Amino acid sequence: MFCGLSAFPLTPVNETGINEKAFVTLIQQLVAAGVDSIGALGSTGNYAYLNREERLRVLRLAVHSAEGIPVMISISAIRTSEVLRLAEDAQRAGASAVLLAPISYQTLTNDEVFLLYEQVTNSLSIPLCVYDNPSTSHFHFSDELHGRIAELPNVSSIKIPGVPSDPEAAKTRIRKLRTAIPPHVTIGVSGDSFAVTGLNAGCEAWYSVLGGLFPNVCLKMTRLAQAGFADEAKRLSALLEPIWTLFHQYGSLRVISAAAEISGLISSPSLPLPLQPLNQLAREHLEFILKDIQTTETSCSPFG
Amino acid sequence: MFCGLSAFPLTPVNETGINEKAFVTLIQQLVAAGVDSIGALGSTGNYAYLNREERLRVLRLAVHSAEGIPVMISISAIRTSEVLRLAEDAQRAGASAVLLAPISYQTLTNDEVFLLYEQVTNSLSIPLCVYDNPSTSHFHFSDELHGRIAELPNVSSIKIPGVPSDPEAAKTRIRKLRTAIPPHVTIGVSGDSFAVTGLNAGCEAWYSVLGGLFPNVCLKMTRLAQAGFADEAKRLSALLEPIWTLFHQYGSLRVISAAAEISGLISSPSLPLPLQPLNQLAREHLEFILKDIQTTETSCSPFG
Repeated sequence: MFCGLSAFPLTPVNETGINEKAFVTLIQQLVAAGVDSIGALGSTGNYAYLNREERLRVLRLAVHSAEGIPVMISISAIRTSEVLRLAEDAQRAGASAVLLAPISYQTLTNDEVFLLYEQVTNSLSIPLCVYDNPSTSHFHFSDELHGRIAELPNVSSIKIPGVPSDPEAAKTRIRKLRTAIPPHVTIGVSGDSFAVTGLNAGCEAWYSVLGGLFPNVCLKMTRLAQAGFADEAKRLSALLEPIWTLFHQYGSLRVISAAAEISGLISSPSLPLPLQPLNQLAREHLEFILKDIQTTETSCSPFG
Repeated sequence: MFCGLSAFPLTPVNETGINEKAFVTLIQQLVAAGVDSIGALGSTGNYAYLNREERLRVLRLAVHSAEGIPVMISISAIRTSEVLRLAEDAQRAGASAVLLAPISYQTLTNDEVFLLYEQVTNSLSIPLCVYDNPSTSHFHFSDELHGRIAELPNVSSIKIPGVPSDPEAAKTRIRKLRTAIPPHVTIGVSGDSFAVTGLNAGCEAWYSVLGGLFPNVCLKMTRLAQAGFADEAKRLSALLEPIWTLFHQYGSLRVISAAAEISGLISSPSLPLPLQPLNQLAREHLEFILKDIQTTETSCSPFG
């Protein structure tokens, strides 16, 4: 399950609660498209803004609606004891894998992060994906630490925060990380604008924000790259450049929640305070570029 | 209450729970020393590792043991709705003030941070101190944003993360921030190694980690600086250089928890996982330098 397109859907949340119906609709879209796996409650899934009960509820909805597509779920929390409780919930509710970032309040040392992964993987009976996301966790993994953690039982993949934009530099980066980790551990790229470069450079998976809302176009890019059509995959990614730019300017979460609202899939607001929706000017620009993306999405659909 | 020494005690926590008895002992030390205020459940108070019920319990213990010394409490949380609940708890349990940092998962914009403070201060009937701590919140306040927030009702102080080590540069820094905020809002320095430089530069308060364990020496430094004895205050701070160095190397929380353990005030471990205790080598060095600090502490005590 740690290869191909892993789609990370939004969990629509506001001050009145979780919009469960809309969340299920998003999952059903992913099922219809046939994504390789679903990453529920990732950063885009707003896991950090939900309590344990809410996270369990969202997980159950995801597993129930996924029709057999493997569901990976974030169990990240500031305190180890809470991570362990979330791991137990995940396993009991039928998650196929867990995703763990070393989020923290006090800055963690390398040893503290290693011991966290050691303790959690020891308690797991399902695979774990290491979530390397310095923009939210503020922790920077060295390849040496990735190597130590990747040797732990149940570690099956690493979600990396991106690759250099130059294709050769990206290949060098992936080759270097690959030498540090065992062969059974896959590398998955995130940061959607880097995805095709990452896949072309040898990443086995794409952990995708856009794929959570527009799975068909993201699947098409993934399949092209997997089949060795590097240039065709790049051309498709280049068509999406306007949305990558918005992701960089406003954060992918604010953009994808606005895109889902504009598409009529969810109601507004769809983010928990203190997060504010995309500002009006950016939203108007998004409305404009979304038409092209929707056309591309439809043309990439197996039913389109 | 936003002037002088505000002592931030440790909340001893491990996998078996909060060591309430030890926490009360720490508060009683601060009362005996006569600190100007107590900052319970700050970063050193491990607030980020405790749930709402635990935070309320610690607050009640602090208020009950403080014998009238004002208690300020952190209400920081990732989600606004939780901050509002914690604010209500704080007011009901008798806190004299609240401390709020814009901690986050997704990177916050300036407007999101302003709106958070606006919403929270609107709901408050006690003063608020803005907690500017980029090393844990990863948010960087501009002076312009400090100015906007400081105009909100109930904002009474700003806890800044430090000042330049050069005394003249520190004065320039404080003067610049002062021009951005209303005169009734005090500026309190944190980052203990900067404290005397900050107080000498015109900060009205010192929000202190060391003061939570060694209040007498910190009170002495504060009183000297307040009375204009800048050089004497600097000399006393220079005596503590070995512990400032350890704070910088290992984080003040790990050092202060080890110091409290070595002093016999709390049992070990006193930090929640994934935080690990100070490593053995650093602990031995701390044991060595602690003797001098304890001697200084005793000599600064009104009973010493």
